[in-house]
Amino acid sequence: MRRIDADHAATTRPAPEVLEAMSPYLGDGWGNASSVHARGEAARDAVESARLEVTRLLGAQPEEVVFTASGSEANNLALQGALAASAEPRRRRVLVSAVEHPSVLATARFLATRGWDVSELPVLANGVVDLDALREALADDVALVSVMAVNNETGVLQPVEDIGPFVKQAGALFHVDAVQAAGKRPIAVDAWQADLASVAAHKIRGPLGAAALFVRRRVKLVPLVHGGRQERGRRAGTENLAAIAGFGAAAALARTELAAGAYRRVEALGERLLAELLMRVPDTRLNGDLNRRAGGIVNVCFAGVDGEALLHELDRAGVSVSTGSACSSGEPGPSHVLLAMGSRPEDAHASVRFSLGTDTLDDDITHIAEVTPPLVERLRALAGRAIEKSA
Amino acid sequence: MRRIDADHAATTRPAPEVLEAMSPYLGDGWGNASSVHARGEAARDAVESARLEVTRLLGAQPEEVVFTASGSEANNLALQGALAASAEPRRRRVLVSAVEHPSVLATARFLATRGWDVSELPVLANGVVDLDALREALADDVALVSVMAVNNETGVLQPVEDIGPFVKQAGALFHVDAVQAAGKRPIAVDAWQADLASVAAHKIRGPLGAAALFVRRRVKLVPLVHGGRQERGRRAGTENLAAIAGFGAAAALARTELAAGAYRRVEALGERLLAELLMRVPDTRLNGDLNRRAGGIVNVCFAGVDGEALLHELDRAGVSVSTGSACSSGEPGPSHVLLAMGSRPEDAHASVRFSLGTDTLDDDITHIAEVTPPLVERLRALAGRAIEKSA
Repeated sequence: MRRIDADHAATTRPAPEVLEAMSPYLGDGWGNASSVHARGEAARDAVESARLEVTRLLGAQPEEVVFTASGSEANNLALQGALAASAEPRRRRVLVSAVEHPSVLATARFLATRGWDVSELPVLANGVVDLDALREALADDVALVSVMAVNNETGVLQPVEDIGPFVKQAGALFHVDAVQAAGKRPIAVDAWQADLASVAAHKIRGPLGAAALFVRRRVKLVPLVHGGRQERGRRAGTENLAAIAGFGAAAALARTELAAGAYRRVEALGERLLAELLMRVPDTRLNGDLNRRAGGIVNVCFAGVDGEALLHELDRAGVSVSTGSACSSGEPGPSHVLLAMGSRPEDAHASVRFSLGTDTLDDDITHIAEVTPPLVERLRALAGRAIEKSA
Repeated sequence: MRRIDADHAATTRPAPEVLEAMSPYLGDGWGNASSVHARGEAARDAVESARLEVTRLLGAQPEEVVFTASGSEANNLALQGALAASAEPRRRRVLVSAVEHPSVLATARFLATRGWDVSELPVLANGVVDLDALREALADDVALVSVMAVNNETGVLQPVEDIGPFVKQAGALFHVDAVQAAGKRPIAVDAWQADLASVAAHKIRGPLGAAALFVRRRVKLVPLVHGGRQERGRRAGTENLAAIAGFGAAAALARTELAAGAYRRVEALGERLLAELLMRVPDTRLNGDLNRRAGGIVNVCFAGVDGEALLHELDRAGVSVSTGSACSSGEPGPSHVLLAMGSRPEDAHASVRFSLGTDTLDDDITHIAEVTPPLVERLRALAGRAIEKSA
């Protein structure tokens, strides 16, 4: 059976260029980038070449890029690290949007147990952060604001370029989780006025195990991992050479493909998928703003359907999708993102995320659009019978 | 030029079995182990199979193994995580040996800035922790003791099996950094009475990017990385599938090779190297206890020689070695381990670590023993001329 990956927002298949970039460092080029000898020096050169590519992806400077092992670690380092280093005792408030990734929300909740006054900013029904609420909350007691660039569940674009100036005017640090933005929209830490920004290799056809945090010059961090002087003392631990080399190749690929319009093709596929589903399946609607989205993420509510059951049926039909965030499959209850957008719990529960990528084919869309409607119909019929029985 | 790796304690070349185990997960088997669909389930299965192998290496239970990205992260999670979760307000003391890895020492120093009362336990001239000092320091105000099983710079074995019972009697948590022990001596968390123990894949011919912390049942941890529910809520972030699969293969290999006596052969090579160097180079001595060592690590003081210069000369001759710990190449000044053992700074500075592994050949030893003496002689002559000139 042909398997179709419609779960690119969870992770992506490493690109051939990425595997090629990794390969030497799993073979003859293995090494510890801290070693002083030639083998170590070659490893160090590979890490720094990759850092240059990640730097370009972010629009930053090399000394502003700290490699981590995951987007979650980058988000944790941003929030925990910057707040632990924060030197202004009167700034004790932390603002995060209610639709952030679990690695930001859970970190914020942890910080709340450690004496920080954390508020979750509401979003509008379209998934966009409520800018009025943000401006109202932004006073001179705010230490840090964290808003993502592209939502991982809905693809909704947050106006980080509008939020940045407000945050900076209030004198707070601005962190942007750009993990889902990479490859979908240009990352521009200067235009966003971001002090901190997270990206992860495996969302852009890079390997698992490599991610990065942009840390603007003069922004201080207390490390999460103390020890050796790797990453200019901001993250100890022997560098994951092969994964970092792969990240470099993935960053270069993402940047050039985005510039060449590759994501516009993905968005066109997403539009077609959405149109087909809305046309073929009654009582179906898009979650999130139609016009403010990374269009390769298509989060659809099939009213009355158990989203998890539909996921399993699609899986049996060879199509991989997600409900809510794959990064928290164990999360009980419906998606916090959809609930924050005002979804009823039963509608959030009836929602499925299709996420496409540059390796998605036209035929994949055709196939998904063909197999999904009868599955939805069947699940609705089953649910109807269940309701009848329980009546 | 043939390159000889005598720097196994820094990192090791991934074994063919390891690359084979990783390969599917960089190719068709890529996936996010948190995804609910078949691809995610296969990824999850791979992570759990690898966890079983690491469990066996440690002598633990699967639910007691938390994957991390590096040994440094595992050590940080052990100390920071267990102390943050510590519920006894009167236990505010932390004891670490003075010869621990930088990731333990730097974490301990960080904890000292966060209200913990940290003491560094002295070691004897042979590199072994001073047990009298340990017993004296162990009172009911101690929260945690951290002592490594095998020193990364000297190979000296610490009597963790003797220390464990003392620590447990005092009611403190016992962490053993077993990163350098894996593959060299059996790891036995129960016999050691360890509550926490760290291992890293890349020291045992596994890949960079995978390591693990043993966390005994009922020992609580506050995560360093908050977010998704990976690793039973103890470490968020998408699992580094390929690296973890490689770690599983490396753990299996290390365990079976150790049982089959492979490290005894490495120790015999180390003995021969030491004997040749002592015989051929005057004013040379071993750092660390001759009889309480993982004998594949041969740390030698060549009196009067600049160790770093010798490292570079050996590198030009195709032999990779280290001075001090490769994990802190930027560390200024002489090795903290040798200083703690009572070395004079100039002797610590004159020391070089040769570290061998299961892929070291007899010929490698012959070559090192041939090229080293004339290099030492030349450097000593240069140093002598420099002294004459300055006189």
